[in-house]
Amino acid sequence: MAKVLTSRSESYAQWYNDLVLKADLAENSSVRGCMVIKPYGYAIWEKMQRVLDDMFKETGHVNAYFPLFIPKSFFSKEAAHVDGFAKECAIVTHYRLKNDPDGKGVIVDPDAKLEEEYIVRPTSETIIWNTYKNWIQSYRDLPILVNQWANVVRWEMRTRLFLRTAEFLWQEGHTAHSTKEEAIKETETMLGVYANFAEQWMAMPVVQGYKTANERFAGALETLTIEALMQDGKALQSGTSHFLGQNFAKAFDVTFTNKEGKIEHVWATSWGVSTRLMGALIMTHSDDNGLVLPPKLAPTQVVIVPIYKKDEELSKISEVAEKLVTELKLRGISVKYDDDDKRKPGWKFAEYELKGVPVRLAIGPRDLENGTVEVARRDTLTKEIMPLEGITGKIEALLNDIQENIFKKALDYRTEHTTKVDDYEEFKQLLDDKGGFFLCHWDGTSETEEKIKADTKATIRCIPLDAPDEEGKCMVTGKPSSKRVLFARSY
Amino acid sequence: MAKVLTSRSESYAQWYNDLVLKADLAENSSVRGCMVIKPYGYAIWEKMQRVLDDMFKETGHVNAYFPLFIPKSFFSKEAAHVDGFAKECAIVTHYRLKNDPDGKGVIVDPDAKLEEEYIVRPTSETIIWNTYKNWIQSYRDLPILVNQWANVVRWEMRTRLFLRTAEFLWQEGHTAHSTKEEAIKETETMLGVYANFAEQWMAMPVVQGYKTANERFAGALETLTIEALMQDGKALQSGTSHFLGQNFAKAFDVTFTNKEGKIEHVWATSWGVSTRLMGALIMTHSDDNGLVLPPKLAPTQVVIVPIYKKDEELSKISEVAEKLVTELKLRGISVKYDDDDKRKPGWKFAEYELKGVPVRLAIGPRDLENGTVEVARRDTLTKEIMPLEGITGKIEALLNDIQENIFKKALDYRTEHTTKVDDYEEFKQLLDDKGGFFLCHWDGTSETEEKIKADTKATIRCIPLDAPDEEGKCMVTGKPSSKRVLFARSY
Ligand SMILES: [Zn+2]
Ligand SMILES: [Zn+2]
Repeated sequence: MAKVLTSRSESYAQWYNDLVLKADLAENSSVRGCMVIKPYGYAIWEKMQRVLDDMFKETGHVNAYFPLFIPKSFFSKEAAHVDGFAKECAIVTHYRLKNDPDGKGVIVDPDAKLEEEYIVRPTSETIIWNTYKNWIQSYRDLPILVNQWANVVRWEMRTRLFLRTAEFLWQEGHTAHSTKEEAIKETETMLGVYANFAEQWMAMPVVQGYKTANERFAGALETLTIEALMQDGKALQSGTSHFLGQNFAKAFDVTFTNKEGKIEHVWATSWGVSTRLMGALIMTHSDDNGLVLPPKLAPTQVVIVPIYKKDEELSKISEVAEKLVTELKLRGISVKYDDDDKRKPGWKFAEYELKGVPVRLAIGPRDLENGTVEVARRDTLTKEIMPLEGITGKIEALLNDIQENIFKKALDYRTEHTTKVDDYEEFKQLLDDKGGFFLCHWDGTSETEEKIKADTKATIRCIPLDAPDEEGKCMVTGKPSSKRVLFARSY
Repeated sequence: MAKVLTSRSESYAQWYNDLVLKADLAENSSVRGCMVIKPYGYAIWEKMQRVLDDMFKETGHVNAYFPLFIPKSFFSKEAAHVDGFAKECAIVTHYRLKNDPDGKGVIVDPDAKLEEEYIVRPTSETIIWNTYKNWIQSYRDLPILVNQWANVVRWEMRTRLFLRTAEFLWQEGHTAHSTKEEAIKETETMLGVYANFAEQWMAMPVVQGYKTANERFAGALETLTIEALMQDGKALQSGTSHFLGQNFAKAFDVTFTNKEGKIEHVWATSWGVSTRLMGALIMTHSDDNGLVLPPKLAPTQVVIVPIYKKDEELSKISEVAEKLVTELKLRGISVKYDDDDKRKPGWKFAEYELKGVPVRLAIGPRDLENGTVEVARRDTLTKEIMPLEGITGKIEALLNDIQENIFKKALDYRTEHTTKVDDYEEFKQLLDDKGGFFLCHWDGTSETEEKIKADTKATIRCIPLDAPDEEGKCMVTGKPSSKRVLFARSY
């Protein structure tokens, strides 16, 4: 069968783009940099949303919704935020169209100019803290543990489906606390939620750590991150959780009366993951045949394909298949019986392989005679004939096995591609030759960090939470360092 | 206890606004016409979303996501759409801010002007049909049954929380079909889904019917609607389903090869409900004490309040209450035990009444002695002492009873406020004196419809699907009419 995807070895970037398009996940739209998320891609995103939303609620959060637009002046209120945040954004200046007096179309009505322009939210700290001002008077009003599912817009010049788009979908948590300690704990808790989601659901191992000052979110005192390693040896920042201190509270004058009757500024966090996770999911597991999905996030976990020549064969196979569908559904497994007679089995096999359905069952006349079924697993591309008797329990176990196997495979890849290096020349060489994560000593200065970035395009992805204390010397300057930090080139 | 709400008789509009604010459902934001949906309001909306989404999926639909922005030129492509659709919308003209050289803030970078302006979607037919063009070649690609959950913006001048806001949340279904019949059937199916949701879940009776040509969606050949009656005698359009014919397919040149190999234009529908349903829900059931929620959509269905003086009393009550919480949760009932010691029981009673929690249980020391619990229902504001033994089954039945009772109450109100009138002067009089729905004969012309609207502000809400054939004369012109249509003043 002709390959529909460019191979990863030929061009990883092209393979990724081919895959996103061919597996019907997303496509570019007529609007510069904005994507259409197609039903199959959206079904995966919905599963991710549902799991994350449950996790947020289990940790005490509630959802709310804040305006899409932010008055321009709000951006100037928090100095670090306005300086640090990219100024590429969508700006609403007018509020009415009118019929073109010279033609058939419509034009912007110049009389309908806004007094103050609105920015389409690139993130919502400012509008939310402006709102919290009215919600918070006393310590009794705290904490506020709110999350928002929303679309946001950042006018990116170079876009890639899911990984970097002008509009993307995300969730942004914005919490308010009476103490610094509680806010820091929240920042850590939510990073833990993200790491747990990435590893347990996406089957994607991540390194948890602190961003350096250079790489922090604009307005944050501390940014925590989870970093995943893609198959091309580049890192992908997959979720961030920010300790914002009292910066936004001070900018928007949000204070509360504490238990002692004293007025204090409120402590803040924010944290988010986006449709970028779709890119991470795709790149972590997929192969040259198409998508590989972790069973826990696959919209269809099992597909059953009948193999037949005559209609009477089909009807016998369908009887067995439909019983199997019922039994699998009872176990909470999502299953599709594809008896569409417009497509041949070979076409269907390739299609479900491309779409990453974890388990494919095929049933033919010989299986009926022998009481068997052919079981193919997507992750290893292996097939096995199994007895029909007791098959549902085996499939349930197989799905768990696939979930574990692809995590292990990704973890093994990461282990093999995490290198301790002490020499800067060796670092540069290995970056090009091997790629992956590098654990190196660094002197803790922004200057050195920037030099490394300028020399190599590698950045400090994070200072890992679990980095052991280890005396060493910065690989560039030779100055003392007390632990290794994580370097990589990144998306 | 002091009333926190303006009474309905004093000012229905003020009562509504008070209620939305005081029950923590939503509030106005700093952005003109845009609301903040607060966590309690959003929790109700989430419940509505989940139920509707399940219903859409049961009827074969899938979700997808299309861009927030629409190129201005797209609006000119479908002539009726551009003429009929309000031109008040948010227009993006620039894509970059820069630091103000004269000050501390930011200004719009005049160099970053878009070649073609983007409109923030007021509805997505144009961008979606522009996308479908690439998805559809053959009859095998049809039908496309896609829904989108999204935010949309219409620059309304006079806004009211949930009922009319510049930005609102909604779902918009956009389907593509190979035949006219199939598209019409889809339009009807989805109206049925909306009616079912309104009546079975929101406990809100609705009239299903056709809009007149004047009131149709811009670009639609037929608009179906569900119309509900509010307690002030005004109608609220609660959901619409449009048969769009081949208009959008022709505007965006979307064709398919049919089974006979001939090329045809595709048939379309669109259908939507929005956060406006929150307004309908609030106004249908609530009273001067606050919100009344149908149990099926209440975020908290049962609240338990301990009545105690001493800590040891509380600990005994808590033992009973927590057992009750576990039992109720096992039955799938959402329950909150409010043992917050910062608030008195009286405060809690008023709070949960205001927030419309359907059932409130109170347990005091005497209840412990007697093995009883005080059960208060929100809809009738009645209380009863019941034995603790077997209480969970009774509460489950009570929740069903409340759901049915508030539907019946709303239906009775509507029946009492639906009047057949044959005389125009009487019609005008009753509109002012009694309000509600009016079933009248109409000659079928736009002129008469417009005259009635100009005279009375009443419009034809719909031509009911179940309107019986009945010979009559138009109440204005005396011309013949074959069925009565539904008039009302409306939101
Ligand atoms: Zn201040
Ligand atoms: Zn055409």
